Amino acid sequence: MAETPLARLESQIAFLNEADKLKAIVRGTKLCDDHRYENSAEHSWHLTLYALVLRDHAEPGVDIDLVIKMLILHDLVEIDAGDNPIFGDHDTAQMEALEKAAADRIFGLLPNDLRDELRAIWEEFEAAETPSARFAKSLDRFQPPMQNLQSGGGSWTDFEVTEEQIHARVGSKIAIGAPTLWDYARARIAEFFASRPSV
Amino acid sequence: MAETPLARLESQIAFLNEADKLKAIVRGTKLCDDHRYENSAEHSWHLTLYALVLRDHAEPGVDIDLVIKMLILHDLVEIDAGDNPIFGDHDTAQMEALEKAAADRIFGLLPNDLRDELRAIWEEFEAAETPSARFAKSLDRFQPPMQNLQSGGGSWTDFEVTEEQIHARVGSKIAIGAPTLWDYARARIAEFFASRPSV
Repeated sequence: MAETPLARLESQIAFLNEADKLKAIVRGTKLCDDHRYENSAEHSWHLTLYALVLRDHAEPGVDIDLVIKMLILHDLVEIDAGDNPIFGDHDTAQMEALEKAAADRIFGLLPNDLRDELRAIWEEFEAAETPSARFAKSLDRFQPPMQNLQSGGGSWTDFEVTEEQIHARVGSKIAIGAPTLWDYARARIAEFFASRPSV
Repeated sequence: MAETPLARLESQIAFLNEADKLKAIVRGTKLCDDHRYENSAEHSWHLTLYALVLRDHAEPGVDIDLVIKMLILHDLVEIDAGDNPIFGDHDTAQMEALEKAAADRIFGLLPNDLRDELRAIWEEFEAAETPSARFAKSLDRFQPPMQNLQSGGGSWTDFEVTEEQIHARVGSKIAIGAPTLWDYARARIAEFFASRPSV
């Protein structure tokens, strides 16, 4: 049976209403003013702005409009699967299964053509194999240290993170898609840990 | 004096850190679950998703990638100028002056080329003269009624808004850039007011 224009629009609105729940998913990173933790919706917005402003740090072959679309969509699965702080412990295979089921349900609210198109953008981001996906992933890892540096430690303090752990868990991932941003972050992180009173 | 790469990147980061403050600007619209008011950062994210999902309601000549950029940037001036609920009273000329000064300061944190480019996108949105700007403005007006319908009244209840006021202040603006979305919203708003117990 052919989809009516009204049924199509109702599916689109149902998806957009469901997406509103991303505003209630709390991340491990604090706002720059250390006042509260950020949620995944405002984080996603901030990342699209990172992409707009830092695109001169993207490697050749990056399509910045596609990067922005990836960043708009990248955390929607957290509505069902939750956020996993990068310095927390979690079962990677289990998380991937949860996120796949979430993508099935959430993108499945859309009309089929949009479901397939947006799901493909999310899958490309997740696979991290194209230049655009690698740059998007790098920005997703680069923003939290920038917030932590502003807020005086943020999630590094909460999770008792060492400089070595940041290099291993965050640095390697930033460096893949945005090496010049990691050079900058590494230097500022070194200054931060050098000047921090020992705990 | 030529800008060094480090000075350029520091300007870009200073702008992105300043933009973080948009997460603390509270709007007049509630989340769909009526739990709290939304902030302008998460609202901006939600609108970029509206653009991605509802682009089949855009008129010919709309560049959806540009619409998304407009929506990422459109509320940044609220960091200095604050949010103005559409059913509140405010001096339009005074608001425009405040927002212009805010744009000078906030976009002025960026390197000159990015300052000029992003400022131009924001100016195009504000002027609402191009098809892309009109569609972006329409989405900005279309999302709050969708939230209010979900939350059982939301800002309409808070501001004691009538159906006629919605038509005048919101409907006319949605209809300019997205007439089919206004047809849909108008019908759902009529149902809502017809079924609401009189107060």
